[in-house]
Amino acid sequence: MSGAIQPDLELAASLFDALARATRRGRGIVRDSYGAGEQAAHDIMRTAAADLGLEVRPDAIGNLFLTLPGRDRSAPRIIIGSHLDSVPQGGNYDGAAGVVAGLAVLSALRRSRHTPACDVSVMAIRGEESAWFDIAYIGSRGAFGLLDPACLEIGRSDSGQTLEAALRQAGFDPQPIRARRPLIEPRSVRAYLELHIEQGPTLVARGLPAAVVSGVRGCKRFRNARCRGEYAHSGAVERPYRHDAVAATVALLHHMENVWLEQQAAGADLVLTSGELYTDPTMHGPSRIAGETRFVLDLRSLSDATMEAVAAAARVAAARIGAAYRVDFELGATSDSPAAVMDERLRGALLRLLERPFEMPSGAGHDAAVFCKVGVPSGMIFVRNENGSHNPHEAMALDDFAVGTRALLALVQEFPF
Amino acid sequence: MSGAIQPDLELAASLFDALARATRRGRGIVRDSYGAGEQAAHDIMRTAAADLGLEVRPDAIGNLFLTLPGRDRSAPRIIIGSHLDSVPQGGNYDGAAGVVAGLAVLSALRRSRHTPACDVSVMAIRGEESAWFDIAYIGSRGAFGLLDPACLEIGRSDSGQTLEAALRQAGFDPQPIRARRPLIEPRSVRAYLELHIEQGPTLVARGLPAAVVSGVRGCKRFRNARCRGEYAHSGAVERPYRHDAVAATVALLHHMENVWLEQQAAGADLVLTSGELYTDPTMHGPSRIAGETRFVLDLRSLSDATMEAVAAAARVAAARIGAAYRVDFELGATSDSPAAVMDERLRGALLRLLERPFEMPSGAGHDAAVFCKVGVPSGMIFVRNENGSHNPHEAMALDDFAVGTRALLALVQEFPF
Repeated sequence: MSGAIQPDLELAASLFDALARATRRGRGIVRDSYGAGEQAAHDIMRTAAADLGLEVRPDAIGNLFLTLPGRDRSAPRIIIGSHLDSVPQGGNYDGAAGVVAGLAVLSALRRSRHTPACDVSVMAIRGEESAWFDIAYIGSRGAFGLLDPACLEIGRSDSGQTLEAALRQAGFDPQPIRARRPLIEPRSVRAYLELHIEQGPTLVARGLPAAVVSGVRGCKRFRNARCRGEYAHSGAVERPYRHDAVAATVALLHHMENVWLEQQAAGADLVLTSGELYTDPTMHGPSRIAGETRFVLDLRSLSDATMEAVAAAARVAAARIGAAYRVDFELGATSDSPAAVMDERLRGALLRLLERPFEMPSGAGHDAAVFCKVGVPSGMIFVRNENGSHNPHEAMALDDFAVGTRALLALVQEFPF
Repeated sequence: MSGAIQPDLELAASLFDALARATRRGRGIVRDSYGAGEQAAHDIMRTAAADLGLEVRPDAIGNLFLTLPGRDRSAPRIIIGSHLDSVPQGGNYDGAAGVVAGLAVLSALRRSRHTPACDVSVMAIRGEESAWFDIAYIGSRGAFGLLDPACLEIGRSDSGQTLEAALRQAGFDPQPIRARRPLIEPRSVRAYLELHIEQGPTLVARGLPAAVVSGVRGCKRFRNARCRGEYAHSGAVERPYRHDAVAATVALLHHMENVWLEQQAAGADLVLTSGELYTDPTMHGPSRIAGETRFVLDLRSLSDATMEAVAAAARVAAARIGAAYRVDFELGATSDSPAAVMDERLRGALLRLLERPFEMPSGAGHDAAVFCKVGVPSGMIFVRNENGSHNPHEAMALDDFAVGTRALLALVQEFPF
């Protein structure tokens, strides 16, 4: 580890400025997937990479590779990546910070005349946000042949233009997606490293600049849970004769909060949320016992086993509480996305290299989870960010970005370890 | 008590048949307040009373008095009453059963040549249901000068015709309502007795034909309670940093269920219901921590003190739980209607006279509560009824009706006690 080399923060600052200038629309940032906003960001990175003397190569579906050649060009390479698209009226840092961090690392290596053992590529990934074509990770999943070809027919949320038409208009080729043909061989990638702003408040609350990400939480969601009781007069029916859907749902959700607390006490990673809960507005009333509720129960964890166990606990509790309250719960099937745990060695190395080391899970999804899924050893860094993401008020300090980027640079210099 | 005299059940059966024939519209019963349906029911009762040789007199606002003269015509009288209107697509028994019971009693007294000590009047009360003019107890409150004259401007829920126009069209006089002029002097009524079908399932569940009503529960309602937190990503925000409006609302409602159980264990009369509970459909989402809920909390009890105590407990809990969950509860003001406890002596006498004596509160409101309010000693009998009320499936057995009516008849014969 050569502590003397520092990431190129001047370059980083100028790239963030250029991105904001080129893609601000009103209060927020608009970098539409496969549209003009995302392309403007790609053009900025391409120009910067050419100025640094990096190799510049887009793949067939528009992901951009900006490569510092290594000593052994046939050896598995390191990819430092993230996405350049944003949600409509998003912020300047979600996604872009990871690409900028990669260029700040490569610029530092270039200036110090350090030739890495293997190629190190910055990958500017297309279409990570689901806001435009209703599916996430188009660029990273497409690169590994993981997209359902039917996605090419999805219309863009605002214009209706299909993904296929958008790809073609931007000069790319839908054929690999149609053929489920991988553009990257997982074994050709030694490590995938992604820096991303934290989308929650943990680092702000803890007063820490950055964290190593232990993994991307999976999600197991009862999307259409329902409780059916019987509507009745709120004054005229005593407790033993009620079939009160609200009371039963409250009992179930209260029980599940206790399950959450028990799982946490046992050291398990878990978040549990009911973000939608409602009686039927056409049937409910202030003096009417509710005959029905609908709700969502969203479980997320780094451990698929934990999600399985908590979902099973929910089903057991729904049966027991349903019987006790004389109602029927129909939790329905879950929609599942598995957890993606980051590579143990990379996590350990990043923790060792990070100033004020701290590790935490990511609750939101990231391209790194796709790389995990195909078996590429992956590591992630979160950078402190005020006000959450996906809004114009994202606020990442360059000093915090520097902390995360220094750890990435140091890690790249350690390879192969 | 002369046990030999039995209520005239043949008359009762024929009156129920006549009511159903005259006021069935499709599957349900329609006896619209101050409309053709209610008037048809009044006409049936008036004809039956004339056949029995009773005095027939409507008051200025359309309540109908059918009177068996007593030995002392100037002594305070007994009124046996209930209403003859129904909700749209209601059942045949809600209200009407009490008027039919009164006529079955007077017919029995007439046939047995029993002359009571005081006048005994059946009072067929107008407009008890709020379904038509959006206010309840028009007839009984109007009889005591308790109506806000502004109610005359309320439009009927279907036609828009004002209450004043409906009164005039039916041949009555809005002037006493406008002047808040009582039509009955409370001291002129020795007792008000009302038989009504039970609107809940208690008697069916307990296998009992009838019950003495201890009182009409009051209501204290947080009609527009609200919890405000912050919307955030369900995966990216750990428990200590959440402002989860659903989790907090669940905690509050769960706490209030425990308050209910404690009150019950201590012998207090209470029912507690949240019949409306909803996240904001324009803001909520399956992967979003809810930033807001709205809900109703409806408390009912025979004891105003119990309602006060439970409402106070709700405010204390909302403050404590709001702080713990980092959200703000705004319970808002309560809308209150006080409890109406039936007369002790009448309750005791009815319990003594009822076969298989059982006492229970009424959760729904009744005209008897208005008589209580003005200080008229009041007593009520519930008769077992399947399927709840306010729907076409009300089902009261004539045998059960006979049990309640026998107690009324026996009580009338005991006066003055």
